Amino acid sequence: MTLPEKTVERLSQYRRTLIECLAQGKTHIYSHQMAGLHHTTAVQVRRDLMLIGYSSVNKKGYNVRELIDVIESIIDHPKGLKVIVVGMGNLGRAITAYFTGKRPKLSIVATFDVDENKVDRVIAGVKCYHLRNMQQFISENDISIAIISSPPETAVAITEMLVLAGIKGILNFTTTPLNVPHSVYLEEYDMITSIEKIAYFVKGLGD
Amino acid sequence: MTLPEKTVERLSQYRRTLIECLAQGKTHIYSHQMAGLHHTTAVQVRRDLMLIGYSSVNKKGYNVRELIDVIESIIDHPKGLKVIVVGMGNLGRAITAYFTGKRPKLSIVATFDVDENKVDRVIAGVKCYHLRNMQQFISENDISIAIISSPPETAVAITEMLVLAGIKGILNFTTTPLNVPHSVYLEEYDMITSIEKIAYFVKGLGD
Repeated sequence: MTLPEKTVERLSQYRRTLIECLAQGKTHIYSHQMAGLHHTTAVQVRRDLMLIGYSSVNKKGYNVRELIDVIESIIDHPKGLKVIVVGMGNLGRAITAYFTGKRPKLSIVATFDVDENKVDRVIAGVKCYHLRNMQQFISENDISIAIISSPPETAVAITEMLVLAGIKGILNFTTTPLNVPHSVYLEEYDMITSIEKIAYFVKGLGD
Repeated sequence: MTLPEKTVERLSQYRRTLIECLAQGKTHIYSHQMAGLHHTTAVQVRRDLMLIGYSSVNKKGYNVRELIDVIESIIDHPKGLKVIVVGMGNLGRAITAYFTGKRPKLSIVATFDVDENKVDRVIAGVKCYHLRNMQQFISENDISIAIISSPPETAVAITEMLVLAGIKGILNFTTTPLNVPHSVYLEEYDMITSIEKIAYFVKGLGD
């Protein structure tokens, strides 16, 4: 069974919270506490966890450690997936630095750029290679996911290269909307849209 | 009437495409072309535009220039809104550089940090001030929106400062989930969730 996209998003967010709870020494959490931290309802939290077959709750709430393991078994690939970042400007560097070490089952193993000042250097903890070596690298190293943080005018050509090389998932951070075959899962994020959405609702709040 | 969040998101995305069309010298576009560029249907495009009172279509499709103006009148604040960025690491710099000049009605007018090497300097084209001056700056300069790109452990304290200073909208790029009063519009983005979502569906594609 494939879970709905929104459920997967929430499970990922629940896990983030649970990992923080664990770091703070909390062993249990109630559904209404989880809901409060995620701007949702306790009913929604319970429904999401029921969807992944988890309903084990006692008087103290959900067992944090156990729930982390259950979410991991649903979301994560058992062997882990390898990720590359294409385009190592400020955004590419920020993504690489931010991501590194956050999830053991998802690791950025290489970055790519065309700038000779970046190529063959270690940037944000990860080796940067020339773009011309990207396709070979993908097939030789079993890369599943590419994050595109290149200039927008290069995004379409890079995507074609990625698809031909057999990439399975793409996260597009450029402003260029992409089209990919059905065999590739595409997620796009444009922060201009986030800010315009805020601007629209801020306008309404002022009325 | 307040539009649904998803409609506002799509209108923002349509406008982005329309601006690109205009730059390429296209004067008209069909709803099915718009739909194709945005992974949606022509019916959805027409429904969204009907919601904002636009149904003026001729044989050549929608008039690009006219539609840009209509979306602008709906989404943008007539006088424009001022934005600040809090936290000028790689991500803050990337956001500031990316955003600058993209939308005339939304401008990043200042950035804030605690690092003395950044304070009082112009970074990515915008002056950086010390965090201790942020609240005064917000009230004196009529700032509406703050983008938080600070270390996650500082996000809650920064949000309290922003809310007290009267900020109306927040875009949170940290991994820390925030809680704000109803008078503030909050949008959160965590790229780990995007990548975990891709990882989940990539796993499914492989089956």
